[in-house]
This record gives sequence, structure tokens and C-alpha cells, in this order.
Amino acid sequence: MRVLLTIALFCIAATPTHAGIFNAQTATLENGLEIVVIPNHRAPIVHHMLWYKAGSAQELAGYSGVAHFLEHLLFKGTDHKDRPLEAGEFSKIIRNIGGQDNAFTSTDYTAFFQTTSKQHLNTIMQMEADRIRHAMPPEKHVLSERAVVIEERNQRTENNPKARFYEQMQATLFPSHPNGRPVIGLHDEIQKMSEKDTHAFYDQWYHPNQAILVITGDITLTEILPDIKSIYGVLPKGPENKRHFPVVPNFEGKTTITQHSAQVKQAQWMRAIRAPSFHQNKKQSLALQVLENILDGGATTRLYKQLVVESKMAVSISFSYSADKYDTSSIWISAIPTESTSMQELESAIETLLTDVIENGVTDQEIKEAKTRLKNAAIFARDSLSGPAHIIGRALTTGSTLNDIETWDEQIETVTKKQIQNVSDIYLKSQNLSEYRYVTGYLLPEIEDK
Amino acid sequence: MRVLLTIALFCIAATPTHAGIFNAQTATLENGLEIVVIPNHRAPIVHHMLWYKAGSAQELAGYSGVAHFLEHLLFKGTDHKDRPLEAGEFSKIIRNIGGQDNAFTSTDYTAFFQTTSKQHLNTIMQMEADRIRHAMPPEKHVLSERAVVIEERNQRTENNPKARFYEQMQATLFPSHPNGRPVIGLHDEIQKMSEKDTHAFYDQWYHPNQAILVITGDITLTEILPDIKSIYGVLPKGPENKRHFPVVPNFEGKTTITQHSAQVKQAQWMRAIRAPSFHQNKKQSLALQVLENILDGGATTRLYKQLVVESKMAVSISFSYSADKYDTSSIWISAIPTESTSMQELESAIETLLTDVIENGVTDQEIKEAKTRLKNAAIFARDSLSGPAHIIGRALTTGSTLNDIETWDEQIETVTKKQIQNVSDIYLKSQNLSEYRYVTGYLLPEIEDK
Repeated sequence: MRVLLTIALFCIAATPTHAGIFNAQTATLENGLEIVVIPNHRAPIVHHMLWYKAGSAQELAGYSGVAHFLEHLLFKGTDHKDRPLEAGEFSKIIRNIGGQDNAFTSTDYTAFFQTTSKQHLNTIMQMEADRIRHAMPPEKHVLSERAVVIEERNQRTENNPKARFYEQMQATLFPSHPNGRPVIGLHDEIQKMSEKDTHAFYDQWYHPNQAILVITGDITLTEILPDIKSIYGVLPKGPENKRHFPVVPNFEGKTTITQHSAQVKQAQWMRAIRAPSFHQNKKQSLALQVLENILDGGATTRLYKQLVVESKMAVSISFSYSADKYDTSSIWISAIPTESTSMQELESAIETLLTDVIENGVTDQEIKEAKTRLKNAAIFARDSLSGPAHIIGRALTTGSTLNDIETWDEQIETVTKKQIQNVSDIYLKSQNLSEYRYVTGYLLPEIEDK
Repeated sequence: MRVLLTIALFCIAATPTHAGIFNAQTATLENGLEIVVIPNHRAPIVHHMLWYKAGSAQELAGYSGVAHFLEHLLFKGTDHKDRPLEAGEFSKIIRNIGGQDNAFTSTDYTAFFQTTSKQHLNTIMQMEADRIRHAMPPEKHVLSERAVVIEERNQRTENNPKARFYEQMQATLFPSHPNGRPVIGLHDEIQKMSEKDTHAFYDQWYHPNQAILVITGDITLTEILPDIKSIYGVLPKGPENKRHFPVVPNFEGKTTITQHSAQVKQAQWMRAIRAPSFHQNKKQSLALQVLENILDGGATTRLYKQLVVESKMAVSISFSYSADKYDTSSIWISAIPTESTSMQELESAIETLLTDVIENGVTDQEIKEAKTRLKNAAIFARDSLSGPAHIIGRALTTGSTLNDIETWDEQIETVTKKQIQNVSDIYLKSQNLSEYRYVTGYLLPEIEDK
């Protein structure tokens, strides 16, 4: 029941696959449910995931956190006439058959997953299919679970100055846009959320035609499709909802946010930049993925080498870009200055480094090494049981096609030096009178009283 | 067909009335239509206004500008079976009977109004009642009117760096909140707006139970009520819609926006501060209204006297607070520095002046003079024909009661020195580690190339 904060996603952003190597097998049921099966016969276990194409971005203004709260409530009982479940019984059954289960919510999707031995797959499918339309938590569980979510928010955000700062950066980067709202929701909006609010979201978005079933492990599509049909196929198709996003306006003002907090011991410099997702602009997104790896692909790549090892201005530095968003995504650059370095010196050094990339481009060698690292990561991801299911679910729910995923390595190979310089020029420039796509943040220890 | 930008509202914010002097006469029809009549027999003319309790704040994310666009479309024809109107015919009829008409849209309301001689009041009521439910502009007019709205936006905003800057300030001050969106809408959202989108808004909000009819002039309620009943009373009651607002999150970061523009000749300093509306917090709002007048009530009040006349640091300075918002409102402080004054010097001088108010309070004499000026303004407003209708419509659609309006001068009288110091302390502090309610903006001429 995690909230996947965008910042967490960076680490595993778009690490797709080898053409024909996932060998994903697919089908679509008549009720619209998409099915993806990736056989992996190393052990007699399966990873079963149901992804909904709805997350916090589909919440109405004033109801932030509904998608995540609903995800919690799906563990609080169902009212299926033949197989009703008590609160908590779902996970208890999974544990009793030696399995594990959990769920997570992000901006564009909500996913539920279980890992068990192959022989229990049908039991799991039956239970998961039941709660697509039969989740019906009793009122008392709704209220107690709301307290759980608020506590989750307290621990994750309210008591963490960096998380609070991140929330403000997001809100400022995406004004009047759902990507600017925290996935877990704002405290005061969660606090007044009712069962009725979660049910409205449930009724709109939880239907087979808005979901993707991904199964990896010791199974093939041919083998499991009859069971999928008899279990998931009987559910009726729901309404056709389109995901609608507001426009992110162009702004010409350069925005900075400065936060002092007694809880902050180490200063931190951050820059968040709006950038296209893969769904919005495939070519630019691919170039940004290579650029990300050139700048921050390891100890020998530009940022770390120049600012941590050589000039010793930063204790740490990172550059992250997430391709997997349905609407506008972002780049985050974050650095912690060394004790003798001021924020302004650090900012200036980072901007000089970026200007060098914009003006002089990157080297052929850097591009080659980055592409190799990216493709190795994809090969590595294929080897795990759950990895491919996560990669595929995330990409499909954010507007990629299976072909995009299967041929990702070939597409990465096509990225040119010129394309990288082009996206650098568009997204990494620090001076731009006609449009500022970024917000710069200074998170600092408390001001000393004079 | 004006868009009332909030900044324009400041000038006439909450200038209500004398108890028993408006002598507003009221009634409510069975279909929910509220009626307010203010007799004024100086001339045989009437001012007829229909106010809807819906504006841009009721737009769904991604559809900014729908409320205002719909207001335009109400002039583009109706399909009433007995009295259909062609596009433009509404205003033509009004002109032909020697009258004038127009409309405006703001965050919390949309209003349509006409001024004519008394004998034509029934004609006007009939036409206005017809378009509550029968506006049906042909597709070709929808598309051409959309071009008109885009041109309106171009002239008002796109070609005006100050307006573009104001839009960014608003968006940053109210993240993920409708008050942060421009009433006229974002260019790219207006551009793709369809008749279907405006109709959804129309069907939700244009009903007698979401409207207030205000008539001022040579008429009494007793005289006109039978006609109002026979004309407006036959319309069916619509759905009960509640206005729902997202929470404005507390942020601890101090936000600044710096914009350089070749179109800007004179630098401008701005600070926008979130503050409660009258509807949200009556006591604080009343104190803020007196405080506003103490700081910026004329040439002898604090801001102008100290910064323009005495220290000569500013060419002009203003402090405006709007009480008339349904949800969170704002204070805007704006100043243009003299040529020899830097932005930082000006900001520091303004902050020093505000700190003096917070720490030492204002004088009894200042309070007395401000209250007198405010009450005189109310008395003055009563004398016009349309003034009272605007004041009452705006206050009622933003959550005030008629009693609030009629007794406004008595309530202003109760504001104490301590209350003024209290709101100064909450809203005007420039250093506050636990919450920054404000955004500071620097609008500057273009940076010279080095």
C-alpha cells in the first residue's frame, strides 16, 4: 500500500527490454481487459499484477488522495455474494498459501500484486477479479483506514522537511495540474474524505476495460487464458473514461523557493524542470533518457566526476528524468554542497556544467557508454520475476505500447548526439527570457537569530 | 462581456451599505430564485441584473475559461419555442428600446445586466429568463465566438507582460486551486473548447436556484413581484450543486518570481499574500478592510506618505485586499521604485513599514479616519443606480448574507486596534519559518547582454 512518490520512480525509470526477449504474450478480453503474460520457468512461482489506468491524476480538485485511499480500502472487505471477504482476509489468505501481496498508487496508475506458487494462481485471480467490482468496506473500516492513511502521511511527509519541500516544489512546478498534487493527498483533504468520495472514484475507474492484467512466471498465455476468461471475462465492461489533463502554462518568470527548517542539518540545492514524458514526445524522451545516463550514470559520469570528485563542491549530486508519465513529466537535479561551498557557488558550478553540455555537446564515447549501461540494465531487469511485470505495467498505463517496450533498446540505439544537444538546449538552459520551465529550490538549516 | 480580473476588483472591494438604507426588499421563489429589489425613484429607469453563483472556480481542471466562454455564448441566440432569438438579437433589442446591456464573469459568479427605462423591464425579464435554460447558439457562432475570446485574451494578457506576470503570481499563490487559474482561461484550453464543454457547465449551473435577481431603480418589490413570479417563477428548479474548493496547502518555503521582459520599461515589485475572505472569516476580513484603508486609503495614509512623499523610494504603491471571495482571497502589495532605488531597497523599506505596523500597531486616529472613509464610500455607493446592485450581487454570490451587507458599517465600527494588529501579525510578516502565505514578484526590464 505504498504511495509511489515520483522521486522514488526515478531510480527505475524506463528500464525496458530486449526485442523479442520479454516475449510478452498478449490478449484482450471482450470486456476490454488487456492481458500480458511473460513466461519465466526458473521456479514454479508466479507474479500476478492488476494495473488500473487511474491514479491521483484522475482525482477531482479538492479530493486529493482519493485514489490512494481507495487502494487501501480494497483490502478492507468485499461483498461478493458467493465469496464475501472480511477486512484483511484477502492478505491473510495469500499469506496462508505462502504468498505475499501488496499494492501501490501513483499519478497515473494503481496496481495490486501477489507472488505465490503457481498452483494458487487461480485462487488469486478469483479474489482479485472479485474486488474489481465488489469492494465494499464497512463504514467502521473506512474511518479507521483513513486514520492509517493520515498517519502514513504524517510519517512520510509532515515529519520530513525534505518531503514537505518537495511537495511545494511539485506544486509550483505544476500549477493547477494534478502532477503538482501529492499522490497521498493533502492532509486536510484526506481528513474529510468519505466512503462516498472513494466510491465515486471506484465506480468511475475500476472496470476491466480500464485495467491491465500482467502475469509473469511459470506460466504461458495459452495455458492460463481459459482460466482468465472464465474468471475475469465474466465481468461487464464499464464506462469509457478518457483521461483529461489541464494544460501546463508557459511562464516567463524565474521561480525560486527558499525554505529554512530547524529539522534540516544539511543544505540541499534542487532544480525541477518540466519535460515531456515518453507518451508525449518519444524522440525527446529517448534523448533525455540517454542524457540522464550520461550525466548521472555512475561514478565516472559528468556530474559526479566533476562536482564531487574533481571540484569537491558537492557531497552528492543526482540528475533524474522519468519517462513514464501519461502527461508532462519532469527532470530533477539535486545536490548537497560541501561545507565550504555556498548555494550560489554550487548553483553556478552546476549551471556552468549544463551550459557546457548545451554549447559543446557530449562525446561519442559518453553516448556509447550510456547506451551500453542502459541496455545492460534492461537485460538485467528481464532476469527477475517481478521486474518485467512492473516495467510493462508502468509503461502501458502511461501510454506506451507493448511494441515501444519490446523495442526500447533499438530505439535507444537510434538517439543521436544532435538530439541530445537539442533536448539539453530546450530543457537545461538556465537563462531563457521567453519561458522558464523550472523551479529552483534552496533547502537550508534554520536562520540563526541575530 | 468583461472578465473581472481580481486585480480590478480591488478598487471596489466590499464597499457595502448602511443598515436600513439600501432598504433592500427580498423574496425567494419556489424554484429557489432569490430576489433583491432596491427602490431608487430619482429617475424612471431600472438596472436589472441576474447573478449566477458559478464562475471560473466551478470549472473542472483542463477546462479553464468555460464559465467566461459560456457567458459570451448567452448572447449568441436562444431556442425558446415562442421567442427564439438570433445571435446578437438580445443586445439589439435592448439597444432598440434605448437600453444598454453587458455581462461579466469572475471566479465565483457570472452576471448579466441591463439598464433601461422602467416600462421595458418586463421585456428584459422575459428575455433574461428565456436564456437561463434556452441558450442554444448554433455551432458556427460557437466557433467564431471562441476566436473572439482568444483575441480578448491576446489583447488583455498575451500582449501584456504585467498581465502574464500576474497570471504566474496567481498560479504560484494558489497551487492546485481554481483561484490560481485565470478567469478568461489558458490560451491552449480555450482553443480546444467545444460547445459540449460549455453546455455541460450550462446544464450544471444555470438554474433559478443557483441565481440571484437584483433590480434597482424606480420600482418596488410589491409592484414587480407578480411579474417576476409569472416570468421567472415558471422555470423548474435545477439540481442542488454545492461549490467545492480544494484546500490551499501550507508551505514553508519563501517563493520569489523574477521576470525580465523587453516590453517592461518600469520595474515593479509585487507581493501577493493569501488571506481569508469575508465568507471564510468575518472578523479577520473586517479588520483587513480597515487595515487596507489605513495603509492605502489616500495621499495621507501610511504607504503613500512614507514611501512616495517622504523617502521618495517609490513612484507609486498600493495595498489591496478583496473581501468578496467564496474561498480564500488575497492581499496584493505593488510598488514601482524610483530610478535611484533598487528592488532590494524598496522591498526592505516596505517590509520595515509593515514590521512597524505589526510591532507597534496603528494609531486610534488612523483607525478613526479609515472607518470614516469606508463609511463615506458606502454612503456614496448607495446614491448610484447600478452600484448597489453590483455590491449586493457580488457579496451574496460570495457567501455573505443580506444582513451582512446591510449592517456592514456597524460591523466595521466594531473593529479594534488589537484585531488590526492581529491580522497584521498573521498576514504581513515577512519572516515566518512555519508558513509562507506569500509570493514576491520582481518584474524587470530585459537583462542587458554582457
